[in-house]
Amino acid sequence: MAINVSIVGATGYTGQELIEVLLRHPDVRLTGLYSTTDKPQKIWDLIPSLKNKTDLICKKLDKKDIVSGKSDVVFLALPHTFAMDIVADLLKAGKYVIDLSADYRIKNTKVYEQAYNIKHKDKGNLLKAVYGLPELYRSKIKGAKLVANPGCYPTAAILALAPLVALGLIDPDSIIIDAKSGTTGAGKKAEKELLFSEIDENFCAYKVNSHQHMPEIDQELAKLAGKNLKVVFVPHLLPLKRGILETVYAKVKGSKQKFDFVSLCGKFYKKEPFVRIRQEGDWPCLKDVTGTNFCDISMKAFGENIIIVSAIDNLLKGASGQAVQNMNIMFGFPETTGLI
Amino acid sequence: MAINVSIVGATGYTGQELIEVLLRHPDVRLTGLYSTTDKPQKIWDLIPSLKNKTDLICKKLDKKDIVSGKSDVVFLALPHTFAMDIVADLLKAGKYVIDLSADYRIKNTKVYEQAYNIKHKDKGNLLKAVYGLPELYRSKIKGAKLVANPGCYPTAAILALAPLVALGLIDPDSIIIDAKSGTTGAGKKAEKELLFSEIDENFCAYKVNSHQHMPEIDQELAKLAGKNLKVVFVPHLLPLKRGILETVYAKVKGSKQKFDFVSLCGKFYKKEPFVRIRQEGDWPCLKDVTGTNFCDISMKAFGENIIIVSAIDNLLKGASGQAVQNMNIMFGFPETTGLI
Amino acid sequence: MAINVSIVGATGYTGQELIEVLLRHPDVRLTGLYSTTDKPQKIWDLIPSLKNKTDLICKKLDKKDIVSGKSDVVFLALPHTFAMDIVADLLKAGKYVIDLSADYRIKNTKVYEQAYNIKHKDKGNLLKAVYGLPELYRSKIKGAKLVANPGCYPTAAILALAPLVALGLIDPDSIIIDAKSGTTGAGKKAEKELLFSEIDENFCAYKVNSHQHMPEIDQELAKLAGKNLKVVFVPHLLPLKRGILETVYAKVKGSKQKFDFVSLCGKFYKKEPFVRIRQEGDWPCLKDVTGTNFCDISMKAFGENIIIVSAIDNLLKGASGQAVQNMNIMFGFPETTGLI
Amino acid sequence: MAINVSIVGATGYTGQELIEVLLRHPDVRLTGLYSTTDKPQKIWDLIPSLKNKTDLICKKLDKKDIVSGKSDVVFLALPHTFAMDIVADLLKAGKYVIDLSADYRIKNTKVYEQAYNIKHKDKGNLLKAVYGLPELYRSKIKGAKLVANPGCYPTAAILALAPLVALGLIDPDSIIIDAKSGTTGAGKKAEKELLFSEIDENFCAYKVNSHQHMPEIDQELAKLAGKNLKVVFVPHLLPLKRGILETVYAKVKGSKQKFDFVSLCGKFYKKEPFVRIRQEGDWPCLKDVTGTNFCDISMKAFGENIIIVSAIDNLLKGASGQAVQNMNIMFGFPETTGLI
Repeated sequence: MAINVSIVGATGYTGQELIEVLLRHPDVRLTGLYSTTDKPQKIWDLIPSLKNKTDLICKKLDKKDIVSGKSDVVFLALPHTFAMDIVADLLKAGKYVIDLSADYRIKNTKVYEQAYNIKHKDKGNLLKAVYGLPELYRSKIKGAKLVANPGCYPTAAILALAPLVALGLIDPDSIIIDAKSGTTGAGKKAEKELLFSEIDENFCAYKVNSHQHMPEIDQELAKLAGKNLKVVFVPHLLPLKRGILETVYAKVKGSKQKFDFVSLCGKFYKKEPFVRIRQEGDWPCLKDVTGTNFCDISMKAFGENIIIVSAIDNLLKGASGQAVQNMNIMFGFPETTGLI
Repeated sequence: MAINVSIVGATGYTGQELIEVLLRHPDVRLTGLYSTTDKPQKIWDLIPSLKNKTDLICKKLDKKDIVSGKSDVVFLALPHTFAMDIVADLLKAGKYVIDLSADYRIKNTKVYEQAYNIKHKDKGNLLKAVYGLPELYRSKIKGAKLVANPGCYPTAAILALAPLVALGLIDPDSIIIDAKSGTTGAGKKAEKELLFSEIDENFCAYKVNSHQHMPEIDQELAKLAGKNLKVVFVPHLLPLKRGILETVYAKVKGSKQKFDFVSLCGKFYKKEPFVRIRQEGDWPCLKDVTGTNFCDISMKAFGENIIIVSAIDNLLKGASGQAVQNMNIMFGFPETTGLI
Repeated sequence: MAINVSIVGATGYTGQELIEVLLRHPDVRLTGLYSTTDKPQKIWDLIPSLKNKTDLICKKLDKKDIVSGKSDVVFLALPHTFAMDIVADLLKAGKYVIDLSADYRIKNTKVYEQAYNIKHKDKGNLLKAVYGLPELYRSKIKGAKLVANPGCYPTAAILALAPLVALGLIDPDSIIIDAKSGTTGAGKKAEKELLFSEIDENFCAYKVNSHQHMPEIDQELAKLAGKNLKVVFVPHLLPLKRGILETVYAKVKGSKQKFDFVSLCGKFYKKEPFVRIRQEGDWPCLKDVTGTNFCDISMKAFGENIIIVSAIDNLLKGASGQAVQNMNIMFGFPETTGLI
Repeated sequence: MAINVSIVGATGYTGQELIEVLLRHPDVRLTGLYSTTDKPQKIWDLIPSLKNKTDLICKKLDKKDIVSGKSDVVFLALPHTFAMDIVADLLKAGKYVIDLSADYRIKNTKVYEQAYNIKHKDKGNLLKAVYGLPELYRSKIKGAKLVANPGCYPTAAILALAPLVALGLIDPDSIIIDAKSGTTGAGKKAEKELLFSEIDENFCAYKVNSHQHMPEIDQELAKLAGKNLKVVFVPHLLPLKRGILETVYAKVKGSKQKFDFVSLCGKFYKKEPFVRIRQEGDWPCLKDVTGTNFCDISMKAFGENIIIVSAIDNLLKGASGQAVQNMNIMFGFPETTGLI
């Protein structure tokens, strides 16, 4: 039997991607779309590519309406701070919630408040929220009512590093992440810096070692390392729409330099449907993963240095695809449904 | 002896291009830069590529300051309506003015007001303004105090069609212009439609047969044809920054179908330094003209149909380069100074 | 029960698209992949994005092997001339054939031979082949053993013009098609003209009024017009990967200028799942159709001139998507299976 | 009095850039252009953008003709191995040579032969060649007959690191260079990997820690460090035409963590016309340097980690612009002539 699903923030880039994925999902009935539109209108009036696929109405963002809707699960695909205003009510109404914003990802509210420069208003549910990275938290996601869907940069970074950190192969204090993202990661905001004329034929570093996704990476790797750590992290903006590629550098622990890293990581992710460990020297490109929910990872050690390249589609494994993967786990559907 | 030059609207795409061209111009001293900045600051704080090239200060837009400045010539590189508020004062102050906006291009104010949806406030100077297309109005530009620099689409269209219309080779009522422009033509405006994520990998027609540049094309071709006419004109937005390519279709007059059009057009533009008539079949690409002040034109007749392709850099021959070409003519400098 | 399907030319852009679509098709079992590879290898060694989706082997192109394979239907996704060497044998072996090349599209072999500069070797089957544009030939496709899948430019052009020509609303001798295509239309050929450094930030017309797709458009529109005709056709190369947008100009017949064209075309395509007639003034963009099998069409008359804009994804409705649509019709599957 | 200049390899991307720069150079007379063309032809038949700028003939590559030509200086803009076949003869004929290939950059022939997989044939002149990085070798360049123009990646890397290494501020064994380049760096070769359809919307790492430019970086930094070293170096291919941006990571020596790195580097390059040290936090973008000969550098320390971002135009400061800068030094012209 199909479940009823609502999407809040249906006309942003992640919202649109959720619609596309969920329309193909055999166990889902899309029942509510909400957006910052002035008045209710057909979703294909707002996103013409959807015409002949669905006649769903997109409604104004209205918290009461969202909470009282008939959905079994609500996807929140809005910038941070919106979620913490509505999650408590949604949970009280018996709904499952998958939040694509940052509001429920960071367990330490001081760290959250410093990274996002805002007070956290729902510390109670923060502790109950499960971090929605299936490769690390599948069993907790199964029983979760509230899933905090990971950030795009953290997804690629944590998947690249989890086996090496968990198995104690690298020095956790040596991690450097050079990350490159397409523009949809910045959302659909009317800002001069995001104009085509500014980004085309251009390439920049930004928020150098100060991006708000850093504490999220630190939190998750610290759990695996069993100690606090701080990664060095430099994000860059690519002149393309979709995809994140991260080049990661770390120091191999002296005694481990002869290990077969590819094979160990392959084992770590052996049962994972969406992580593809590639052979040594077979470095992934963005085009290998765009349009898919896969994370492709390759690595090679050069003496004490190990280099890892990790690639995802920021709108799928980095956001909406992973959110649907979490939904599949929460509701007991086969994990790849709608995603392969 | 060098002349003093001010640029009003120095930080837009055409303003920046004017700075670049004029810094290389041996007969020009840049003395004033004005922009919608809050406070005076070094121009290279606003446009980092200019560092080590100039230490000029960019000042707040202030009409009094602009009028009382020591410039001999003022370039107005702002959206329409600004020019008609200041031109009268500039002329009274004895300055030469080159206006890159649409305010002084269209002689019929009713047509202007309908196309731009605004009242014209300076009809007196409108009649004195010279339309700054050197290939058609060089002798008038020589003596002009106020030059209305042509629009980007009209420049490519009029240069493509002028010989054919003037020599009576085509039916002036049969003209269809399919125009494609890069994004800098839309200016540096923070609008969702102009975001990289919206334009990259995309292509659209817009303002189909209703673009504000149409009456400008009609006005100029009508003079050459000796009769009123209306072109069919469809602009499209290309996913690239610089350049306009127009594919023009017209009907050859029956008795002229055996004429050698390339050779006739070559003669028409024989002395023109910036129009390059190419051999039949040697169709121009944008990359042949980007970064230059040239207009490349090729054409071929197929029975009664003639097809003409015309290409310019919208920021140079379509705006700032042509403005400097006009300045060169007005002040008696060799016409290609700073431009080749 | 699922049918067995082979793809010949599996690693080109249309071949890869066929694999992606057919892997999602519930009634299809992919059984054979053939390419110009040296030795059999896993398809995901050649196309890494397919890993974890399929372990199919891609074999060397070998006509005997293809003919004797267990496939019920064979898709030929190779450059022209290959198909006419193998189709007769495939048909004899009882297979259904969908040819994505040009070999069986043009009924007049003289015209074919002039357009493609090659002798036709299989005139017998040419006459039996059905032109695979479902919107015009659905009933014939149903019973066909050999379908000639239309070219990408012709698909967008014919769908844009079919109602207007068939209903006698426009002068069939007045048609001008200004077409713009992404680069995948040129295939995966190692040629300097197709390098990123040559096409990025560039835009060109090519094969001006001499493209090999013109006779295909002429042939189909002539049938609808009931008389011979020749369109004017100028293709251009866009700096993007996927999509064709065509801007079409024609003269409305004098007595028809007050007709409601949008509504008449809407009726013409009323039952078509993949043609979306848009409201007047709602011009389609490429991004509305990329990744889909839809053809979006909008039009508006201005006095005697009508302007039509038509957009498709050249790899889907312009090639592989339409090929699967044809397969669905031939085998009695719901027409949109695997495509929406 | 102007000098006579020849360009060998005139139609590649660096050759074309040399022509553009040298045509604007007041002290240069371009006298010879050579390319892999079949027969002599006007250079603007091969590069249409040059029409109306020059009518120079481009001749077939012929070593005798090049050596016996009347040029005072010859620029060699061809792939490696060509230069070592002709340099000895050019020097004997009394010509100055600026080689843009890798043939004379690496002093240790074993290292050269391993990196480029070819025997070195001109060890005598190798030792006399001066490495043409003006910021480090200006006085030697002044007296040089043969200049080995640096590689594009090494230029950005060495300029970023030279002050920090020379002043002993960082641990020279800790250097990691994450480099990103536009596609013109790969030259104009007809290869499938370089097709627009493969690179557009894509991003890849390649030659991970094994690029042939690594020994060049190691050689130059080792001289500054006073000890051998090996950098970690990962190049990536950006979907844009021009520009290199390198993000460099290193460990600050413990005792130096409170130093003002920006100010120290600013002093190091105080008299350099083409190095722009930017304020802390003002990270450079490619668009700040494309079309210029500048290298923009910014840096910031975070505890023991220092992050440096360095940006150049690979065709100018990374190749042809730097070559002209070297020529200016060799012939006593003001160093920025033709370049600002």
